[in-house]
Amino acid sequence: MARIVQKYGGTSVGDIERIKRVAERIKIAHDEGHELVVVVSARSGVTNELIARAKAIHEHPSERELDMLLATGEQETIALTAIALHALAVEAVSYTGAQAGIFTDKAHTKAKIKTINPQPIEHDLQAGRVVIVAGFQGINEDGQITTLGRGGSDLTAIALAAAVRADKCEIYTDVDGVYTADPRVVKDARKLDEISYDEMLELASSGSKVMQSRSVEFAKKYDVMFEVRSSFNHNPGTIVKEEVVYMEQVVVRGVAVDKDQIKVVVGDLPDKPGSAARVFRALADANIIVDMIVQNIGHNGVANLTFTVPLGDSHLAEQALGPVFTELGGGKVTVHNQIAKLSVVGVGMKTHSGVAATLFQTLAEHRINIELISTSEIKISVVIEAARADEAARAAHAAFGLDKL
Amino acid sequence: MARIVQKYGGTSVGDIERIKRVAERIKIAHDEGHELVVVVSARSGVTNELIARAKAIHEHPSERELDMLLATGEQETIALTAIALHALAVEAVSYTGAQAGIFTDKAHTKAKIKTINPQPIEHDLQAGRVVIVAGFQGINEDGQITTLGRGGSDLTAIALAAAVRADKCEIYTDVDGVYTADPRVVKDARKLDEISYDEMLELASSGSKVMQSRSVEFAKKYDVMFEVRSSFNHNPGTIVKEEVVYMEQVVVRGVAVDKDQIKVVVGDLPDKPGSAARVFRALADANIIVDMIVQNIGHNGVANLTFTVPLGDSHLAEQALGPVFTELGGGKVTVHNQIAKLSVVGVGMKTHSGVAATLFQTLAEHRINIELISTSEIKISVVIEAARADEAARAAHAAFGLDKL
Repeated sequence: MARIVQKYGGTSVGDIERIKRVAERIKIAHDEGHELVVVVSARSGVTNELIARAKAIHEHPSERELDMLLATGEQETIALTAIALHALAVEAVSYTGAQAGIFTDKAHTKAKIKTINPQPIEHDLQAGRVVIVAGFQGINEDGQITTLGRGGSDLTAIALAAAVRADKCEIYTDVDGVYTADPRVVKDARKLDEISYDEMLELASSGSKVMQSRSVEFAKKYDVMFEVRSSFNHNPGTIVKEEVVYMEQVVVRGVAVDKDQIKVVVGDLPDKPGSAARVFRALADANIIVDMIVQNIGHNGVANLTFTVPLGDSHLAEQALGPVFTELGGGKVTVHNQIAKLSVVGVGMKTHSGVAATLFQTLAEHRINIELISTSEIKISVVIEAARADEAARAAHAAFGLDKL
Repeated sequence: MARIVQKYGGTSVGDIERIKRVAERIKIAHDEGHELVVVVSARSGVTNELIARAKAIHEHPSERELDMLLATGEQETIALTAIALHALAVEAVSYTGAQAGIFTDKAHTKAKIKTINPQPIEHDLQAGRVVIVAGFQGINEDGQITTLGRGGSDLTAIALAAAVRADKCEIYTDVDGVYTADPRVVKDARKLDEISYDEMLELASSGSKVMQSRSVEFAKKYDVMFEVRSSFNHNPGTIVKEEVVYMEQVVVRGVAVDKDQIKVVVGDLPDKPGSAARVFRALADANIIVDMIVQNIGHNGVANLTFTVPLGDSHLAEQALGPVFTELGGGKVTVHNQIAKLSVVGVGMKTHSGVAATLFQTLAEHRINIELISTSEIKISVVIEAARADEAARAAHAAFGLDKL
């Protein structure tokens, strides 16, 4: 008998029939004698529908009220999932984020989990009940409903797995696991059986949409092993954990493309000590995630900064930087949309050289121009023209032999 | 400056445009300097839609989970209403029932309000904010979400008006107020400017759908004066309060028809002391509201009981009585659907005789048969054939001169 946290995303609970199928899957694990905590998302589409309603009323709805509104999406799913389990004669009880004791900070729409009180869930588990928890939401110390932002339901699952000391955490989604590349783009992409937290993190931050980085970071921090697998079949998925022992000496584990980034060039910035720090402090204060920074010291006492930010944040970035430019006495923003970030990832890169050379050589052979480069211990990313991204991914996948077992 | 509780029903907040119009109406009162607590229902149709989803999964969904599910309806409306007020530059903040400190007992789907902690609302009112509260819902001492059952949002408004010591409570609905009869049935029906709690109570229990009895009872108990008025125009509505001084010596104030009742005949009941008490105790324990009781002592040691119950509860009533019949050693239930209850109501009846005689005479002239009769100090009700109910209402309305000013 194990204690298992399962998480089902919006597609898996997209309608009544799918909720029933999720309940059947939960029942199988329950009948095997496992203790189950199940995290569910809002039905797919519901969150966007609610946001659309709010925006039909106000261009920039209050974030507190958005959280109040969005939290209803998961609250509906938990109740329906519990009812579906009752229909299968499985004892089950639903919990909102607040009821599950998920306490967050006060950052509405992108709150961070501070603590989880596992007592109420523990009580129901010991009574033999399946506990269904609303993903994506929590409560702050003022009793306000908060939401955790993108990927919040995965985070709820991983954090709960840590809090209730689960033996296993299963993230059910609409893909079979983590692939060496996006199978829609690279035909020969293969599913990985195992991957390390660090590789998963680099893949997530590189546009592999399987999971958000923050959930993987949380899992790494609390050493929560989890499996990403499909809710639509019974195939084994990809296990994500600290140490992965490879049978073969694999250097590159995956290729990822992120088209949801834009390139921001801050020009005419007075070249004073602290200018760049001031810029990135302002972006951080606005909760904007900045990636791939390049600084060029220009002539005439002005500097240029180039970096990438998530697509949706360009407006926020411009807003955040306005006051900084006033304060520094100069600066202007130019935004470039048609870019993509291509990354190759693998822990083997720590001890192998030549990965960068192979990547650059491959892109050169395809006459694909590199606009920005950034590297970490286990990743190399390049910004290239968006229109060439898929071609580049296929070329890199082949160049690193990822199509071969 | 007054402190006002306003309540908007599901039709008034039925879609985005209507929510915006409600916000405009709230803004008018806010701009006049009033402190405002606004209770809103779920958008019309939402609650039924959610129930349908639950029933598509399970014929008898768990009441706890139903409450979890249904509470999302109002939670959506409070957020959207607050956002609509922000769009009009009015400071506003939404509260779930739990956040508004509305504590109930544990009777899921028909919980009773036990206490309200007015502190959080008081705090926001003093800060100049409009407080938007989810109607129909509360929280019990175990932290479980409960709902208050039919008419729950009205009850929330009246209870909040008592808790925050409001000067006024306005119940906005889709009718202009309380009429002498249903204007769709009786063309000459007139809107009443004022009505006493007791008359309103008798009208509510007699099928006038303006408000549920329990809200009026609560208002009477805590002496909360309230006004029933339309959210679609600015006409004054009907004020409901303790003492109504009439300019004219009106005896009957209104005629009501209730078609949502069924007649239940319990036959072959062993005629022992306590048999009837046992029957009605079982019905009360099942939370079934019984009205218009007639007992006939039959021959051969068996008795008959006849009474009316709400249409939806006939199945529950049969269920509740099964064990009683076993215990008493006899009894069977027959249900009669095609009936209606016609009532004439007026505090003047306390000091006037002849009302019953006039009603019976009028029905006799129309050859409408009376199946059951019950009377209170200020009401006479008769059960008649459903098909003749509208005709009977028109006849009674005219007979008591309600069509004349």
